[in-house]
Amino acid sequence: MTTIDIPEGSLFGLDNLPYGVFSPRGSAPRVGVRVGDSVVDLAVALDDDVFARSSLNAFMAQGYDRWVEVRARIAELVRGDVPDAAVFGVSEVDLHLPVDVADYVDFYASEHHASNLGRLFRPDAEPLMPNWKHLPVGYHGRAGTVVVSGTDIVRPCGQRKAPDEAVPTYGECRRLDIEAELGFIVGVPSELGTAVSTEDFSRHVFGAVLVNDWSARDIQAWEYVPLGPFLGKSFATSISPWVVPLLALESARVPTPEQSPTPLPYLRESEPWGLDIALSVEWNGQEVSRPPYREMYWSPAQMLAHMTVNGASSRTGDLYASGTISGPEKDQRGAFIELTWGGKEPVTVNGEERTFLQDGDEVVISATAPGAEGRIGFGEVRGRILPATEAKR
Amino acid sequence: MTTIDIPEGSLFGLDNLPYGVFSPRGSAPRVGVRVGDSVVDLAVALDDDVFARSSLNAFMAQGYDRWVEVRARIAELVRGDVPDAAVFGVSEVDLHLPVDVADYVDFYASEHHASNLGRLFRPDAEPLMPNWKHLPVGYHGRAGTVVVSGTDIVRPCGQRKAPDEAVPTYGECRRLDIEAELGFIVGVPSELGTAVSTEDFSRHVFGAVLVNDWSARDIQAWEYVPLGPFLGKSFATSISPWVVPLLALESARVPTPEQSPTPLPYLRESEPWGLDIALSVEWNGQEVSRPPYREMYWSPAQMLAHMTVNGASSRTGDLYASGTISGPEKDQRGAFIELTWGGKEPVTVNGEERTFLQDGDEVVISATAPGAEGRIGFGEVRGRILPATEAKR
Repeated sequence: MTTIDIPEGSLFGLDNLPYGVFSPRGSAPRVGVRVGDSVVDLAVALDDDVFARSSLNAFMAQGYDRWVEVRARIAELVRGDVPDAAVFGVSEVDLHLPVDVADYVDFYASEHHASNLGRLFRPDAEPLMPNWKHLPVGYHGRAGTVVVSGTDIVRPCGQRKAPDEAVPTYGECRRLDIEAELGFIVGVPSELGTAVSTEDFSRHVFGAVLVNDWSARDIQAWEYVPLGPFLGKSFATSISPWVVPLLALESARVPTPEQSPTPLPYLRESEPWGLDIALSVEWNGQEVSRPPYREMYWSPAQMLAHMTVNGASSRTGDLYASGTISGPEKDQRGAFIELTWGGKEPVTVNGEERTFLQDGDEVVISATAPGAEGRIGFGEVRGRILPATEAKR
Repeated sequence: MTTIDIPEGSLFGLDNLPYGVFSPRGSAPRVGVRVGDSVVDLAVALDDDVFARSSLNAFMAQGYDRWVEVRARIAELVRGDVPDAAVFGVSEVDLHLPVDVADYVDFYASEHHASNLGRLFRPDAEPLMPNWKHLPVGYHGRAGTVVVSGTDIVRPCGQRKAPDEAVPTYGECRRLDIEAELGFIVGVPSELGTAVSTEDFSRHVFGAVLVNDWSARDIQAWEYVPLGPFLGKSFATSISPWVVPLLALESARVPTPEQSPTPLPYLRESEPWGLDIALSVEWNGQEVSRPPYREMYWSPAQMLAHMTVNGASSRTGDLYASGTISGPEKDQRGAFIELTWGGKEPVTVNGEERTFLQDGDEVVISATAPGAEGRIGFGEVRGRILPATEAKR
């Protein structure tokens, strides 16, 4: 038996306990929980086959009461001794995509981000569209290209036309960007024809991950009218390997910024689901932005209520992301197109002036939040840009 | 043993052989093939467990050579005698969703439809956007709400604002519409970072279905700027139960309409993949439109090439639809918003003037195409409108 050591100040104490899918090198993936710098194999530690799977989906589908019970059992277990065979060092294992992603939706819930992008994409119009303060604007993305942190990102090719070009050309993306976001994962499905109320949010949503919604701005700008972003986004979306349970985020709950006009009744909340999560964006090892999730206009409970108000069902494994998290300050912007104002105001990264991503660049997004005892961590979502692979076309 | 009778003039002769998932009442779903008015249980007839599944996905993933082989074996089998236990009358079985839908994409490939909708949604601007003739415009839809023909469609509720209203309101959709489309189903996946060429289309795409992309026009009009349609579409998308193999559509291949300007090289085709498929739209039993698929500007091979040109992977079970099929004539329009010109020019249905869908209405879309011997059928995609279910909210 082993006693798991939790280092002083660890972001992965008993008030966090995020779930992931891991494999000791060469073995089959299974569900684990992170404690300090260790990963506990839950199929072994709890003697339960629901964790002997390559995704969290089966466990998430068991529902809220079970999430509470398992969390309590893990905390109890970890306070005592854990079987040796169930404990691995986090550096000794591979981390996998934690969920089988069903549908992927991306919202646009930061007023600062939406305003900045409106100014950049449509300089002659009002930055916020008339609908923006009435509903959480969102769209479906490509579930099949959601990848786990650490997956290399191949620079996409495609069709793009700069404003000063007469016709579009095919080629490598020249304005490759990030979007720092938070993603929410549905555990308990909802039926076709039934809306989920804001009150029921925490009984459906299991937890949260960090998201990097890689964006090819030149491809996006040319393609997105009138049906929205498509190839400018669909080449890859990275998520962090650890799913922080909503149960661990109770201490992070804060009211959203004031919503005016007052939303329609189906979007109102009796209890706040704003979240005080502090993100950090590192570009080649240098922090360039600190996006504050607490500034997000729409809460994740409002997003789920909106997504299902038309009777659309949701499934176990649905992932919906917040959209880029940007605060009011320049160094709080969660996308490089905003941070560099469309490439016109470079930022200095390790002494070089930089605008969009170059081949070989690496971006790491991390986050922490208040937990019940200290701060808790989301870990990170990391990705490195590889050159475009013309040869494979 | 049974000899399967194929009635004279049947749309389901040996040159069609569409696949579906069926169950004799009360039994587990499995893969079958339609022959005349019969369904042949392939797990029994071919003694192969890949067909003893609730979706076509495992079979589709086996690849092109296997599709050719199985099709030949079925034709040979059906020319002789089939075990009694493998044959069911099509009216004696339930038909299910034929595939586990991975990602769902909807294109916008009819010039007539895009022009009509441009005029209706943006009366003061050019009807076609500048990008439209350069690339097949498309977007991701909700895979989890793809349902099989015969599933009732609950009228969606949501947020909408008529042009003459100052603020949006919540309520039932008042402009519920259809979109008659063709959908293509990916059998063989493609890898992340790899584009599929137009030449490789038929090695990846297994077959085609009919699609009714139900559309809540009032919800869509209010929400869709700038990220595209979302709740106006996501409440339900119906598909026909029979997947017509691409192998059955060789005689239907025609050139697309002339494409000008010439598309970029990655969108060019060495062999045509336009399809001469004739659709019919019935509203409460009366035919109101005959959309011609051969008028579609972009081919399905071009759609797949575009969808993957940025390196996005595709998966077995991916469904991508053509977008509304509309021809140049008024009675060839595949959506009621076009057919009734935004509700201003009602059509007469069974003696009544009608614009958008009323509760209790039923829409049936069917199609036929030239086969190797006679015409072949797609069957139908059918759906009936149920009243909004406020009580469940």
